[in-house]
Amino acid sequence: MSYIVYPGAHHTRFQHALGAMFLMQKAVYALRTKGIQISEAEHEALLVAILLHDIGHGPFSHAMEHSIVEDVDHEYLSLAFMKKLNEECNGALDTAIAIFTNRYPRKFMHQLVSGQLDMDRLDYLRRDSFYTGVSEGAVNTERLITMLNVHDDTLVVEEKGIYSVEKFIVARRLMYWQVYLHKTSLVAEQLLLRLLKRAKEVTQAGATLPATPALQFFLTTTITKRTFSSEVLEQFSKLDDYDIVSAIKMWVSAEDTVLRTIAKMLLNRDLLKVKLKKNPVTVARMHSKKRALMQRDHLSEAEASYFVFQGEISNLAYRMDHNAIHLLKKNGKMIDVAKASDQLNIEALSKTVIKYYLCYPKSL
Amino acid sequence: MSYIVYPGAHHTRFQHALGAMFLMQKAVYALRTKGIQISEAEHEALLVAILLHDIGHGPFSHAMEHSIVEDVDHEYLSLAFMKKLNEECNGALDTAIAIFTNRYPRKFMHQLVSGQLDMDRLDYLRRDSFYTGVSEGAVNTERLITMLNVHDDTLVVEEKGIYSVEKFIVARRLMYWQVYLHKTSLVAEQLLLRLLKRAKEVTQAGATLPATPALQFFLTTTITKRTFSSEVLEQFSKLDDYDIVSAIKMWVSAEDTVLRTIAKMLLNRDLLKVKLKKNPVTVARMHSKKRALMQRDHLSEAEASYFVFQGEISNLAYRMDHNAIHLLKKNGKMIDVAKASDQLNIEALSKTVIKYYLCYPKSL
Amino acid sequence: MSYIVYPGAHHTRFQHALGAMFLMQKAVYALRTKGIQISEAEHEALLVAILLHDIGHGPFSHAMEHSIVEDVDHEYLSLAFMKKLNEECNGALDTAIAIFTNRYPRKFMHQLVSGQLDMDRLDYLRRDSFYTGVSEGAVNTERLITMLNVHDDTLVVEEKGIYSVEKFIVARRLMYWQVYLHKTSLVAEQLLLRLLKRAKEVTQAGATLPATPALQFFLTTTITKRTFSSEVLEQFSKLDDYDIVSAIKMWVSAEDTVLRTIAKMLLNRDLLKVKLKKNPVTVARMHSKKRALMQRDHLSEAEASYFVFQGEISNLAYRMDHNAIHLLKKNGKMIDVAKASDQLNIEALSKTVIKYYLCYPKSL
Amino acid sequence: MSYIVYPGAHHTRFQHALGAMFLMQKAVYALRTKGIQISEAEHEALLVAILLHDIGHGPFSHAMEHSIVEDVDHEYLSLAFMKKLNEECNGALDTAIAIFTNRYPRKFMHQLVSGQLDMDRLDYLRRDSFYTGVSEGAVNTERLITMLNVHDDTLVVEEKGIYSVEKFIVARRLMYWQVYLHKTSLVAEQLLLRLLKRAKEVTQAGATLPATPALQFFLTTTITKRTFSSEVLEQFSKLDDYDIVSAIKMWVSAEDTVLRTIAKMLLNRDLLKVKLKKNPVTVARMHSKKRALMQRDHLSEAEASYFVFQGEISNLAYRMDHNAIHLLKKNGKMIDVAKASDQLNIEALSKTVIKYYLCYPKSL
Repeated sequence: MSYIVYPGAHHTRFQHALGAMFLMQKAVYALRTKGIQISEAEHEALLVAILLHDIGHGPFSHAMEHSIVEDVDHEYLSLAFMKKLNEECNGALDTAIAIFTNRYPRKFMHQLVSGQLDMDRLDYLRRDSFYTGVSEGAVNTERLITMLNVHDDTLVVEEKGIYSVEKFIVARRLMYWQVYLHKTSLVAEQLLLRLLKRAKEVTQAGATLPATPALQFFLTTTITKRTFSSEVLEQFSKLDDYDIVSAIKMWVSAEDTVLRTIAKMLLNRDLLKVKLKKNPVTVARMHSKKRALMQRDHLSEAEASYFVFQGEISNLAYRMDHNAIHLLKKNGKMIDVAKASDQLNIEALSKTVIKYYLCYPKSL
Repeated sequence: MSYIVYPGAHHTRFQHALGAMFLMQKAVYALRTKGIQISEAEHEALLVAILLHDIGHGPFSHAMEHSIVEDVDHEYLSLAFMKKLNEECNGALDTAIAIFTNRYPRKFMHQLVSGQLDMDRLDYLRRDSFYTGVSEGAVNTERLITMLNVHDDTLVVEEKGIYSVEKFIVARRLMYWQVYLHKTSLVAEQLLLRLLKRAKEVTQAGATLPATPALQFFLTTTITKRTFSSEVLEQFSKLDDYDIVSAIKMWVSAEDTVLRTIAKMLLNRDLLKVKLKKNPVTVARMHSKKRALMQRDHLSEAEASYFVFQGEISNLAYRMDHNAIHLLKKNGKMIDVAKASDQLNIEALSKTVIKYYLCYPKSL
Repeated sequence: MSYIVYPGAHHTRFQHALGAMFLMQKAVYALRTKGIQISEAEHEALLVAILLHDIGHGPFSHAMEHSIVEDVDHEYLSLAFMKKLNEECNGALDTAIAIFTNRYPRKFMHQLVSGQLDMDRLDYLRRDSFYTGVSEGAVNTERLITMLNVHDDTLVVEEKGIYSVEKFIVARRLMYWQVYLHKTSLVAEQLLLRLLKRAKEVTQAGATLPATPALQFFLTTTITKRTFSSEVLEQFSKLDDYDIVSAIKMWVSAEDTVLRTIAKMLLNRDLLKVKLKKNPVTVARMHSKKRALMQRDHLSEAEASYFVFQGEISNLAYRMDHNAIHLLKKNGKMIDVAKASDQLNIEALSKTVIKYYLCYPKSL
Repeated sequence: MSYIVYPGAHHTRFQHALGAMFLMQKAVYALRTKGIQISEAEHEALLVAILLHDIGHGPFSHAMEHSIVEDVDHEYLSLAFMKKLNEECNGALDTAIAIFTNRYPRKFMHQLVSGQLDMDRLDYLRRDSFYTGVSEGAVNTERLITMLNVHDDTLVVEEKGIYSVEKFIVARRLMYWQVYLHKTSLVAEQLLLRLLKRAKEVTQAGATLPATPALQFFLTTTITKRTFSSEVLEQFSKLDDYDIVSAIKMWVSAEDTVLRTIAKMLLNRDLLKVKLKKNPVTVARMHSKKRALMQRDHLSEAEASYFVFQGEISNLAYRMDHNAIHLLKKNGKMIDVAKASDQLNIEALSKTVIKYYLCYPKSL
């Protein structure tokens, strides 16, 4: 929903997948130049793994995962798609899947696909910075890739890249708070999540909402890992932004007040008020807002909960664990970038930051 | 349909309208700096006129105008929207409308909104160059705007800007042939046009196609200027890309073979073959292709015409008429940029270039 | 000397002064937009102050200040130039000088000229990042300036700019270690400093070295604040890179071995070896290197000290004192950016980092 | 002298040589990808040839060639340097020299070094556009190089690159008129040329001017191809901008009025007035200006000729001859880009444009 705040942010997941694959090509070239052996089959598997790593993301992924496809997350779905393709291609994706699921013996390959400095992150940070115009989030991907190396089967950055890594971590943090967790995008996403949830409730209570066949399927069907089938996968593959947005546009005429009101809010970009705080919202405050709305608009508590709610958002800029970003020192030793002398601030960035939000109608 | 060729080209008309308005602000500032009097009311009217100049463009505008809203073009619709808003705002748009329709006494203002060097072109060339990555099409809008002036109520460029104007014309030509008239986008647009035409025929023959209410309205209603009403305008305002694309997605299961086939082609990006030529396609060649398809797939000639067709595209990089781009010489005289000494090549660019195309199934 | 490492870094102080003045114009415009009253006279004074703030920097400023114009630093000289101009202009620079020396009642104006977020820094960071190609050091100056404000006569950044300020501090740190304190530039500068010192010694011992008249003046004259005169100022104004570099080129044929050797090193870019360490170099290590050189090349200890020496470099990315960068919170309070919640890493960046270096001939 | 107009234009010939070599690497890579065989020895020779192609350019090359080293141009000198190096390296530059002098059997290699689309031009256009800020002159070198190919031992551009080639030619023309032949740079260069000429005359008449040893050599020695020696080459190699500019600075105190006046003009950037015209300056006009100056300042006609003079500048954007830029059509045929249909304007650009200038003191 970032386009509500940044009108230029209209790029697609398809572009991102192509971009990440392009960076993977560069990374393989850079590593080979340094003497790391990567076979042609491994090269291809890396390209396939990164091309497909996000294929399980549905439209407005986060909102969908917490409303109509609750039990299966995008990693589960990405893997399901890869397995399906693998069947159709007679095992041609075996290595790609092994790398994706971290079961390939050469661990550094998984790190290129999924780690704290993987091609996914390098592409999306730069791409999102470019399209939003938040130039502070730009990352010098070429230089970072040029400084990659492999040591003890671990992806490392050469020591001289220390400041570039620091810059990368800071840029990533900045993009989180300034773009991904922007409070206006946040409330839009929360409203979309509630719209889809409500639509499913209304449907399962017997009403028929206008919707494309693919979306209709997910409104009427409860998806669980246990009952997951190839039909679900096929229907899922048909679902995209066009199904969701055309539904929002039709639901502005829905009978159900809650559904209709949220659809109008999203379509007219006239969202709820949102307050961001360092401390959790008190129960008393929530209750007072909710009661006020119930009285004014004659709503039940359940209905009011769609418009008055709280939550938290958090971000960890850098994680100091076994998946840390490692520097390769000139003496051949590896060291967690956060522990390199003079990098006290990366250590400081290794603490999770939590913010709390409260949403309620502007008119309240 | 350019995103089929240039995956980054996913920007919106909304962004473009904001961008053109931003440039208009700069242009007003630049002209005032040079002593051109522009009142606050005129300034506002210029901003409104450029903000709304494209509001009558529907989704996939060109395809729609030649299929389901044949008789009313986007200029007609833009003006209709402005008049509607003007009513609602008690005449606040009077000046903006006068400028837009070139009935305002100060003619240079219309040229800022609609001319060979207007803010519309300056924004879309730069924006499209940026998003497609065709960097040769980039235009130095800041510099061009800085060199604008007004002489005898005509928008002019200062003499020293001659090479920048030339570069602008060449960049525009390049964008036409490399992006806007790219043969793959061209065939995609032609197919979409035929899809919508067919959908309307099928609907008017009695069938009911799945479609959002707004699109349904246009499939079932014939729009003419004579019967144009505020209801048509309201329905039109509800129509956007989401209606069209979600329809394409649903029509891949349509009963009608032509409709279903075209929808699949568009969805799977598996389009017709297209040949670009300097000379018109001969009747014999067309016939031979069409007959081959009729026989192979047991189609009527009318049906085959959806998949075998010809046409022409043309582009005029620069028009030498009363709307020419004028240079203001240091001696205070104006001159058509194409006639400035040493600019023989702009004169050469003032000739319309026509290319002819023939489309037919790849399998043929 | 950065151009030895970054061949593109050939920009001039003149460009920087123009650039900083350009940013000052933007800053004044941004502050006025927010209601801060800045008179035309103050505006002009700010432009003059920033245009001239660096005018006392001689060629290869740091090397010169520690060799041939030891007792007068560039701030002293900048002020001397401004006073001279002020005399010639009958006091037209009074306000500019008051702002420059922080004696103007409105303190925020001095902060625009000289502070942790002044127009000087904003320009040089961006400019140096651009010309060296170290894109990680780029700073989004437009956005930072847009977010400036004044509160209680203190220059502040609006709260929402917190991540941009963080990015600015990190970028600045990166530029220090990667460019300004790069070990190759460092040793080049140390050698130039020693070359000039030696040239002065040799001259004062009676030899005549080829040199331009302006450089000759400084080789033969000892400059102190006490004996500082308008003649010194005039001679200083004639001195630039061309005097120094043409001297280096001529001194490769000097009789004095030390002078000749250093001149050759600089001209042929064949410098000393330099080791950077976290801990100070031990006296024993220095001695051992120096003795080795003395024996091998039959040099006195004084001579050997020109080629074997140690030192330290340090950088403080952000200073938490009364000149801190202050954020203006929405509730109207100011807060040091390092103390804003979630900014532990800026606090971490407020610790001075020291590195130690040892230089000696490569052949040793 | 472009930095007088564009303060950012302070880049060096060293950077340009490195840049052109970098592009050559890319070109070799692109051609090999298309199956063109280029041996490692040829690759190295191409890199050496492009790295050294401009080494014979002295400081302010054009001014010097027409004043103090009249008889030997930069191509002669580049070759002399290469031969010298070749001797020192026992023939290691044989192939590079053969390519440079177009005596290598594979002609396309010479075209990469010296042709209408060589790596030299591609680098300097982009570099100069970047440093001057004249963004209209930017060339998409990556894309042009990607579209290179070799056909019949001729360097060609693939047909689809037609608009990029057009854009390149237009950009080049723009850079000529807007930067290289800018009238202020032009007059500065003409003055420098006259300064050096006068310095040589004065020296040869017996006076001794302050100058670095290398410059002194050229003031006292007449250089001809016949008497060209390795000593001349060595002295020439020592000459750079620092010799010329430090001389200008010292000559502002010269006894000779003409020399002193020109030196001051250059140092204070207070140049002559320059008029650019489409038609040649009439003899009468020249005479009238010259006589006016002679009378006012009591100068001889010879002296006055240093301050009142005329000349012409010309530029040919594209040359249609055997060295034309060829397109490789899909049918395997080559065609001069100017003759490709729809490229009438390139044909128009194949006409030499001449402009005439007259310079005289502003005060006249």
